[in-house]
Amino acid sequence: MGRNNEMKLGLYLAWAGYHEGAWRDPSAPANGGVNIDHYAHLAELAEGAAFHFVFLADHQGVIDHPTTIARAARNDGLEPITLLSALSSRTRNIGLVGTATTTYYQPYHLARMFASLDHLSQGRAAWNIVTSAMNSEAHNFGDKELPDHESRYARAKEFVEVVKGLWDTWEDDAFIRDKESGVYADTAKLHVLNHHGNHFSVKGPLNIARPPQGHPVLVQAGASAAGVAFAAEVAEVVFTAEPRLENGKQYYATLKGKARAFGRADDQVLVMPGIVPIVGRTKHEASEKLQRLQSYTHIDVLIGAAELWLGSVTDLRSIDLDSFVPDTLPQTNSIQSRQKLLVDLAVRQKFTWRQLIHLVSDSRGHLLVVGTPEEIANVMVDTFDQHAADGFNVLPATIPGGLKDFIELVVPELRRRGKFRSRYSGQTLRENLGFKRPVNRFTRASGRQ
Amino acid sequence: MGRNNEMKLGLYLAWAGYHEGAWRDPSAPANGGVNIDHYAHLAELAEGAAFHFVFLADHQGVIDHPTTIARAARNDGLEPITLLSALSSRTRNIGLVGTATTTYYQPYHLARMFASLDHLSQGRAAWNIVTSAMNSEAHNFGDKELPDHESRYARAKEFVEVVKGLWDTWEDDAFIRDKESGVYADTAKLHVLNHHGNHFSVKGPLNIARPPQGHPVLVQAGASAAGVAFAAEVAEVVFTAEPRLENGKQYYATLKGKARAFGRADDQVLVMPGIVPIVGRTKHEASEKLQRLQSYTHIDVLIGAAELWLGSVTDLRSIDLDSFVPDTLPQTNSIQSRQKLLVDLAVRQKFTWRQLIHLVSDSRGHLLVVGTPEEIANVMVDTFDQHAADGFNVLPATIPGGLKDFIELVVPELRRRGKFRSRYSGQTLRENLGFKRPVNRFTRASGRQ
Repeated sequence: MGRNNEMKLGLYLAWAGYHEGAWRDPSAPANGGVNIDHYAHLAELAEGAAFHFVFLADHQGVIDHPTTIARAARNDGLEPITLLSALSSRTRNIGLVGTATTTYYQPYHLARMFASLDHLSQGRAAWNIVTSAMNSEAHNFGDKELPDHESRYARAKEFVEVVKGLWDTWEDDAFIRDKESGVYADTAKLHVLNHHGNHFSVKGPLNIARPPQGHPVLVQAGASAAGVAFAAEVAEVVFTAEPRLENGKQYYATLKGKARAFGRADDQVLVMPGIVPIVGRTKHEASEKLQRLQSYTHIDVLIGAAELWLGSVTDLRSIDLDSFVPDTLPQTNSIQSRQKLLVDLAVRQKFTWRQLIHLVSDSRGHLLVVGTPEEIANVMVDTFDQHAADGFNVLPATIPGGLKDFIELVVPELRRRGKFRSRYSGQTLRENLGFKRPVNRFTRASGRQ
Repeated sequence: MGRNNEMKLGLYLAWAGYHEGAWRDPSAPANGGVNIDHYAHLAELAEGAAFHFVFLADHQGVIDHPTTIARAARNDGLEPITLLSALSSRTRNIGLVGTATTTYYQPYHLARMFASLDHLSQGRAAWNIVTSAMNSEAHNFGDKELPDHESRYARAKEFVEVVKGLWDTWEDDAFIRDKESGVYADTAKLHVLNHHGNHFSVKGPLNIARPPQGHPVLVQAGASAAGVAFAAEVAEVVFTAEPRLENGKQYYATLKGKARAFGRADDQVLVMPGIVPIVGRTKHEASEKLQRLQSYTHIDVLIGAAELWLGSVTDLRSIDLDSFVPDTLPQTNSIQSRQKLLVDLAVRQKFTWRQLIHLVSDSRGHLLVVGTPEEIANVMVDTFDQHAADGFNVLPATIPGGLKDFIELVVPELRRRGKFRSRYSGQTLRENLGFKRPVNRFTRASGRQ
């Protein structure tokens, strides 16, 4: 495999933590969602522990069902691109992963903004490519509902091609900036894209120098068939949700195989599932932490979150929550893969609907590990060693509480086992993840590189 | 008038300076366009001098004519929204004005990003509303050419209404964040916009708390008839180009009169023309500085810049540049007002085309003052006292050289005359400009405020 023995770690930066009840945890600052000092503190904690990146999810709209809004903390947070730009000035080494939708942006905007973020951070930018999954986003951009899954992915694929083409507008050494002669740019190294496709017509050129990383790192989380195909071709980091080891191994092998078919080496596509670690000095203490968090979640919050992730598979407000989840449920135009994963888990474990909606609130189907630092490290190392993961996107249930627990207790355990580094090895995110710098498509075409 | 005796000052943050030849000045760092430390240094200089704001212009495309690109420094700069977000973490008091086009953005994006910037900066964000003026922007967003002037303004007006409505989504005290009860938001203070207009359908709600300023400050620079009407209704700061005192007085009176017709007080709409100060210990030294800058501009640069600002009024590449500018020229679908201003100036002063294209390169029609600190202060104070300006957007010909000259030599002269402050009076930009905090449209409607 050529894989080294070090796992990659990202921090999923939900300002209060990943658990639906996290904002009620004593460690969460009340106004944390709009407080840059809070986010900077979290990024500094992760950077101090040599995490590879912080990861910001995003939705272009209010997430929750009307009845949930009163009790959810998600609709009161800073916008990712602006937030990461600010964090670029408050950190030095850690990667900055921002989510942005191809369904409701234009490629010229995102190409420019991520190129700019890459310059601001001296090569630490990454774009998590999503296609939007909620009709509440569609309603903010003139659509009655989301385009169907297939159309969204077709648009996403063209979108990414355009963005990469725009990043290659200027060759790395196109800007000469020679004061003596008055020549600023070598226009032989300027390439106009002239893209005309099904979804976009974008002429270019982009009005910013090529990003320090060549291209910011591309992250993706799609796990449907269309999503996996897209990830295999395009993504460099794949953020998955897979709590079952056997399925994780299978996914890992499948993805790397499909990527190989696109001529991509195994170490150029990293699989990073999410993990929700709940750390206690004893297993009992960890369980109590989870129970306390669960006690924070009102039934409206549980149902609201479940509706978001399960889509309209059933009417949770009229169903008997203590009945079992049946094994025949329709698929909807939502986050298809996660819906399937959650329902499959519930059916296999003979969950009631109440247990399923708690599972959604606790982890949204991500690997949930409740235990001692040793137990959590065991699961992580095992998943890594068995080639079900190249690392993890860590989703602390509470922040900063659960993040500090993880850094102070689990990270040292991973280091003792030789599985995690103590310092940054490279300057750029791309270097730290072991990725090659992309060759400019235009120099490649001309045979100059 | 109720106007106090202190002028407002902004810094137009062109990374190398406003003059077309500025990047060849010895003071300009070669890679300044993409270097955050350079921009942060400039913002710190302006903040140290108690400037009200830094101002970032923008275009969603490469500005220049193909023959100019080789010799122009403009196509290699950071994107404004990301750059200002980074600067929010490197400054404490100065306002952050970013340009963004209503023609090629969606209102939900800009509402979110400027709200986020306002939180990041604790109330220092401002949006300079433009409608785009170059077909090279249109080509990056699927248009063959720009929509006509009137359509662009119709869209802009609706766009701004939507953005303001989204900013009012949550009342100022909507987020209770009560850990004890588990109630995060008072949904009686949540307002869904449900906008359906000619250009946009935007439901809302916005997923971020109301900005600290209520609304970020709105800036505008339109000077055409449509632009003035728009400014009178919407803008709080109007960035004009007007080198002639009499015309400036007339514009000032007209704009304030039109604003009054919308129920807006004179001190809630500030007129801030641009000024290009070239400072010398003697007038001769200042003139030599200008001549040196002019010597940096190749004929291709002169013609390229003139084509941008004059539109297609004539073919500058075939005309005899030493012939006089005639007083009958057609109007084009470009920056109509500036075109007219430049041609009028040239005709009145019996300029040749060569003199006109130098004028464009030197100042783009903004007030150009070449002289000693006293002479420059005289012009500024006179323009202010005669009610042709409430302050100035300062466009140093070179940066940091010309900026330092202005701060070290002209600012103290303005202070000696009691026309400029030495420190910030408020926390937010709105407070520093003397603007009222906007009442939330929904509380106003319900009579609760």
